[in-house]
Amino acid sequence: MNSWLNVDQNSDFSIYNIPFGIASINGTRKVVTRLGDTVIDLHELQEAGYFSNLELKAGIFHKAVLNDFIECGKIACTQTRAVLIQLLSDSNSILAKNQEVQKKAFYPVSQVEMRLPVNIGDYTDFYSSIEHATNVGKMFRDPENALLPNWKHLPVGYHGRSSSIVISGTNTRRPMGQTRPNNDEPPVFGPSKLLDFELEMAFITYGGKALGERINTSEADDYIFGMCLFNDWSARDIQKWEYVPLGPFLAKNFASSISPWIVTLEALEAFRVKGPIQDPPVLPYLQYQGDKNIDIQLEVYIQPENSIESKVSASNYKYMYWNMEQQLAHHTVNGCNIRAGDMMASGTISGQTEDSFGSMLELSWSGSRSIKLADGSERKFLQDGDTVIMKGFAQKGEIRVGFGEVRSKILPARID
Amino acid sequence: MNSWLNVDQNSDFSIYNIPFGIASINGTRKVVTRLGDTVIDLHELQEAGYFSNLELKAGIFHKAVLNDFIECGKIACTQTRAVLIQLLSDSNSILAKNQEVQKKAFYPVSQVEMRLPVNIGDYTDFYSSIEHATNVGKMFRDPENALLPNWKHLPVGYHGRSSSIVISGTNTRRPMGQTRPNNDEPPVFGPSKLLDFELEMAFITYGGKALGERINTSEADDYIFGMCLFNDWSARDIQKWEYVPLGPFLAKNFASSISPWIVTLEALEAFRVKGPIQDPPVLPYLQYQGDKNIDIQLEVYIQPENSIESKVSASNYKYMYWNMEQQLAHHTVNGCNIRAGDMMASGTISGQTEDSFGSMLELSWSGSRSIKLADGSERKFLQDGDTVIMKGFAQKGEIRVGFGEVRSKILPARID
Repeated sequence: MNSWLNVDQNSDFSIYNIPFGIASINGTRKVVTRLGDTVIDLHELQEAGYFSNLELKAGIFHKAVLNDFIECGKIACTQTRAVLIQLLSDSNSILAKNQEVQKKAFYPVSQVEMRLPVNIGDYTDFYSSIEHATNVGKMFRDPENALLPNWKHLPVGYHGRSSSIVISGTNTRRPMGQTRPNNDEPPVFGPSKLLDFELEMAFITYGGKALGERINTSEADDYIFGMCLFNDWSARDIQKWEYVPLGPFLAKNFASSISPWIVTLEALEAFRVKGPIQDPPVLPYLQYQGDKNIDIQLEVYIQPENSIESKVSASNYKYMYWNMEQQLAHHTVNGCNIRAGDMMASGTISGQTEDSFGSMLELSWSGSRSIKLADGSERKFLQDGDTVIMKGFAQKGEIRVGFGEVRSKILPARID
Repeated sequence: MNSWLNVDQNSDFSIYNIPFGIASINGTRKVVTRLGDTVIDLHELQEAGYFSNLELKAGIFHKAVLNDFIECGKIACTQTRAVLIQLLSDSNSILAKNQEVQKKAFYPVSQVEMRLPVNIGDYTDFYSSIEHATNVGKMFRDPENALLPNWKHLPVGYHGRSSSIVISGTNTRRPMGQTRPNNDEPPVFGPSKLLDFELEMAFITYGGKALGERINTSEADDYIFGMCLFNDWSARDIQKWEYVPLGPFLAKNFASSISPWIVTLEALEAFRVKGPIQDPPVLPYLQYQGDKNIDIQLEVYIQPENSIESKVSASNYKYMYWNMEQQLAHHTVNGCNIRAGDMMASGTISGQTEDSFGSMLELSWSGSRSIKLADGSERKFLQDGDTVIMKGFAQKGEIRVGFGEVRSKILPARID
């Protein structure tokens, strides 16, 4: 399948992708998709009548966030994407032949600014990579019993902050906070000294069932709209002091950064792979059928200020021990309700090898070794002026579906 | 100060209160206040021109939630309340003399249904009662070192779930979940056996500063809109198994219940009292001036199905070790942003005596003793059919400002 539009064969945004996002076009936010380096204003396509066979309200794409569209539900969203694929792949389509509509709806990606795609209701962060959980357990608890007893029985998760989730390109300010560097002395206040990224992916949900009902693993896919890259910024020194007994709080909620394009679950289906064998076997409500992991190559780069970027990690979303369907089934098994636009992140995604670890904490093994960068500098944790870039894409033969990137530069702490 | 309307002298909703809420009036949600047993439709008062001196948009009270009103900010909200107090206290006010407007705007409380007042953005739960934290530490950790090392240095808090916060009167379904009753055997799945309430209060915020900026203790009050009662339902057996290392999750997020009326911070100022001496001294960013605790009497009742209610706890919000101003300063010290309609709860509010503990966990000392109810039955934790009722009010001489109640009945777990 090809498009009549010019699309580079290495583009993340092939005709097989057709993600959704929000762009600011001449100062107005609109729902858009992207093909190659062309951003397409869906409101203009709707105005031209191209979605008239679907039951979409007028103006559904003339919105500042995707939530109203997502609330239309899975059938409407997948049909919209199917129409777009037809319009953009068929060189005899009504869009291909209508240069006037193209002129109104098509923008070079360099000419639009992407905005936060979703008004995120609740944000949940899981902890579903066994390699990451094992690494953390080895460093901070017992190397011989790195995983806590519950870890293989349920996808451990916790609630995070949605107000501070920002879009790629937004700078991240190093947080101030309370730490206790020396256990024999009182805590101190100042800029975090152990600022870290966490390589994660997140999924965004459709509206769910009523409070009190649950979503089974077999129906979980029907409640997943799409995915994006997620950098769960973490201040390790703040975390260490604050996190008992109720979990991370200020160490995490100062910012999380996401990539702008929500890649639909449908676009990712071609890249499903078998998950790891879960031993001991999980309880029935967490069992699932079929291939539920997804082969998505992930990369993390650090670019020091005025310097070149260095790849510091190459991981893969297929390493997840717990898949999204299990996460969602677990999250709702107690009757917890989900809403259109909720976000659930994976937790740090680490592989087995040292070059696939998804955080500086693991790459530097808690600061005990340095990572060498291409410009000759070294890092144990992140420095002011560093830009962290995460990229992700799935590839199978010539079919490529990618996420673009999430990028953010670290600003110095605000001391005042 | 009195009203020309009939108000019982023991009413929580005196002329000194004038809270805000959302009522369904003839099927439409509107912003309302309450005086005695009269609910007053603010949209009708605005239509009559009574707020014309204020800069309030037309239709600001014709809303399904308070968020747009709260976004108008502290000055607009306090002025609105001041106008209401004048209209309702002065027997020569334009409202007192206009029976036609009264007819349109006044409803007996029995004729309206209250709705969730706020679209809650992020919900945070603190853990700020020293008596509660000490009790929990004694039961589950070390009786000699009940408080963890960080507890007196920072107001421990964590993020919770906003989607499942429901209004008083909504039934609560006993959650299903994973527990591990026996450490030598695998975990099991079933209804929670240790269902509990937590007596809390919550505050709702105005819009805050930009991401990256912080709110000091001295300006924190400017970001607090008002307060309500908060029942943080908890499943102790689920919590025990799941909560390491990232904190409570499914043990809490199946439901939280709030009282319908948001009592403004201004209405509570008369009841400010001195807080406890904080020793060791806290870091400068947590220090504060003035009396920042609030004397609010709190009560919890259990009413078994088809039976009478029994008071099981009498506590007070003044017992808090960490006040709201400290909580808000801590929450934002790392640059975390807050939005209009965010909610922050206190954590369980326990006093020093056994009859003032704010949860069944503490009242039954982890199930080791039974609480006798008025109908002769006994409880260690909550049973299906039990209704839990929390009440709260502040009283100083003849001035009474109260919250009404939050009430919810426990339904049996859904086994299917």
